[in-house]
Amino acid sequence: MSNIPLLQQLIEALKCLPGVGNKTAQRMAFHMLQRDRQGGLVLADRLHEAITKIGHCSLCRTFTEHEVCRICTNSNRNREQLCVVESPADVMAIEGNTDYRGLYYVLMGRLSPLDGIGPEELGLSKFEARLNEGEVKELILATNATVEGEVTAHVLAEMARKKAIKSTRIAQGVPMGGELEYLDRSTLSHALAGRREYAEE
Amino acid sequence: MSNIPLLQQLIEALKCLPGVGNKTAQRMAFHMLQRDRQGGLVLADRLHEAITKIGHCSLCRTFTEHEVCRICTNSNRNREQLCVVESPADVMAIEGNTDYRGLYYVLMGRLSPLDGIGPEELGLSKFEARLNEGEVKELILATNATVEGEVTAHVLAEMARKKAIKSTRIAQGVPMGGELEYLDRSTLSHALAGRREYAEE
Repeated sequence: MSNIPLLQQLIEALKCLPGVGNKTAQRMAFHMLQRDRQGGLVLADRLHEAITKIGHCSLCRTFTEHEVCRICTNSNRNREQLCVVESPADVMAIEGNTDYRGLYYVLMGRLSPLDGIGPEELGLSKFEARLNEGEVKELILATNATVEGEVTAHVLAEMARKKAIKSTRIAQGVPMGGELEYLDRSTLSHALAGRREYAEE
Repeated sequence: MSNIPLLQQLIEALKCLPGVGNKTAQRMAFHMLQRDRQGGLVLADRLHEAITKIGHCSLCRTFTEHEVCRICTNSNRNREQLCVVESPADVMAIEGNTDYRGLYYVLMGRLSPLDGIGPEELGLSKFEARLNEGEVKELILATNATVEGEVTAHVLAEMARKKAIKSTRIAQGVPMGGELEYLDRSTLSHALAGRREYAEE
């Protein structure tokens, strides 16, 4: 609506949200102006506050409002286990759905040579320094089960091996509720190759 | 992420956007914090500015930053045509896609007896006062082609008829590119009933 510059600017700004194009941005702008101005004002405040106050934990690099995050400062957590993930959203997923009680290290990305992201770009020297401290006894590789995630896990495992630290990879196989008939080839191969003795479970 | 209250608050606030649930709100929050903090800050500003500064035109009730909108103050527009629409988004659609040069009146809703929205709730007395001024010669009923839109158009046409003002309804029929085979029954009936002499076109 070229007649209303402020509205046009709002629509443009909304397009910074993932998956929001012109039509959706218009719909959001009109919705907030017509039906939820209060919600819009709250959103503006929260957005500003979150972005200006949330930084990265100086130890594990996940999001935190403090110098060191609450997981790293929690003395009840097992400091010998270090779970490496790609992003803070992964920490959230593991914390919310499992009873893992060790610490985390957030890569904030993954190795992706095709995109020019090598060990240096990913800041792996900081990670190596962490391993050198000697506290970590088990490195749990929880990068995504994508090509880049596998490559990253491989490189990290190699680093751990050189320092004689045990590294484990989260299991890949049939997801809960999954039916073999509909699984993709790669998942099924992994599930078969990764089979374990029934008694173990 | 209960460990980061500010992040949790941002996720909650994002859910005021239409079509955004918990998962999408999380994805948006993480996206902005990880990849587009600058865009997020701009969005917060634009949102605050738009909501605090955009009000309704005192004549046609569409969104505007001023007392009277730029369409109503434009002396080149035909003041004898008044196009009634349900929302400011409809004004935007007509302005952006047609060469209509008359004025608008935005109902900011539609009659919907089932939801308790009658002529009073919709503020039709203000609309009637506008008709009483005597400037309007043609009332163009451009409410949506829904049940409520049709009811609204019917009531407004009745008001115009009592004041001897001509009222027209935007055409309903086959949309451009539409194939008869796939049209719904109601559209096809309207298209047939609303047929016009071929020479007229």
